[in-house]
Amino acid sequence: MKVGVLVSGTGTNLQALLDAETTGRLEPATLAVVISNKPGVQALARAGAANVPAFVVEHAAVAREVFEDQLHAVLAAHHVEAIVLAGFMRVLTPHFLDHYRDRIINTHPSLLPAFPGANAAAQAIAHGVKISGVTIHFVDASLDGGPIIEQVAVPVFDDDDAAALQARIQSEEHKLLPDVVQRLARGELSCQGRKVRGPGRRAE
Amino acid sequence: MKVGVLVSGTGTNLQALLDAETTGRLEPATLAVVISNKPGVQALARAGAANVPAFVVEHAAVAREVFEDQLHAVLAAHHVEAIVLAGFMRVLTPHFLDHYRDRIINTHPSLLPAFPGANAAAQAIAHGVKISGVTIHFVDASLDGGPIIEQVAVPVFDDDDAAALQARIQSEEHKLLPDVVQRLARGELSCQGRKVRGPGRRAE
Repeated sequence: MKVGVLVSGTGTNLQALLDAETTGRLEPATLAVVISNKPGVQALARAGAANVPAFVVEHAAVAREVFEDQLHAVLAAHHVEAIVLAGFMRVLTPHFLDHYRDRIINTHPSLLPAFPGANAAAQAIAHGVKISGVTIHFVDASLDGGPIIEQVAVPVFDDDDAAALQARIQSEEHKLLPDVVQRLARGELSCQGRKVRGPGRRAE
Repeated sequence: MKVGVLVSGTGTNLQALLDAETTGRLEPATLAVVISNKPGVQALARAGAANVPAFVVEHAAVAREVFEDQLHAVLAAHHVEAIVLAGFMRVLTPHFLDHYRDRIINTHPSLLPAFPGANAAAQAIAHGVKISGVTIHFVDASLDGGPIIEQVAVPVFDDDDAAALQARIQSEEHKLLPDVVQRLARGELSCQGRKVRGPGRRAE
């Protein structure tokens, strides 16, 4: 299964995927293309270093539908069947999403439905929760509201600031994301309404 | 520290507190009185079996302030210094809460701020989360929104219904609640804005 990765920044989640592919932990998924909506970001350099084709599709100067058509054109040219949003900071509309129903996933640094949107770790610290975590979910037109595939809990300690919590969450995210991409590529995830079933979610 | 417990139903959390007191795991807290807003509930029988004074203060026929004054009168007569809401299904107003600022706690069967209100386990199942849990928090006038003292994560499995999840959450709740009451009685919890600090919340 050819996978496209959409990024906007440093690309640490992309790096986790690249590393997993190198060591065979992504099979049968392969990373076919990386697209950033911002030029010059570190994620593009990571893709280049791994010999994965990388493109910039800027959103600033064009209408939303034109932007989404350009994204889709690049993905289609690389025969992409599934998409990972890895720190991609643009909301996508059904105009784009309908091409990839149940084949586009996002990773979010909180236990959704708590703390959707930007700065989830800072939101968690401000609210005073004792547990946060990471959520990987199918993408729909809502803000971080699509069907949840997998979650991992992360403790919040008394002395944490947002950066410390964010780092602890990302450490789990970098383990979980390749695992979910592999399960998706293996056809192991089934989505029925809001319920996503998969291996490893049964009681012992 | 004399503790009053407010209940509305079967009283499984009350039973966890009674059992903890019997085996010394609540010290220096003692359970001084149990009050139910509903007559005939099992929680009252549990209190009676443990020789803890138990009362019914009904809310149905009286104004909210009168109800809260009656609660306060019974609690004051038993020299109660701290209150546990253990499945107590009435919202309390500042008229009552101001007597017990930072000395009244509630237990809720979700990882707040996710799924406040009634039927939290059913809400979690319907949303399709993979992790839920239990939250113990200080009570303010908001619905399950007060400063969070402690949380424990609980996995949600593919085949869970609301009852199965509820049972798994309660199992954790019954361990956590006596522990938090003991910490409160020992003066180990400090509340600053939304942040509650206490022992055992530091990184290893």
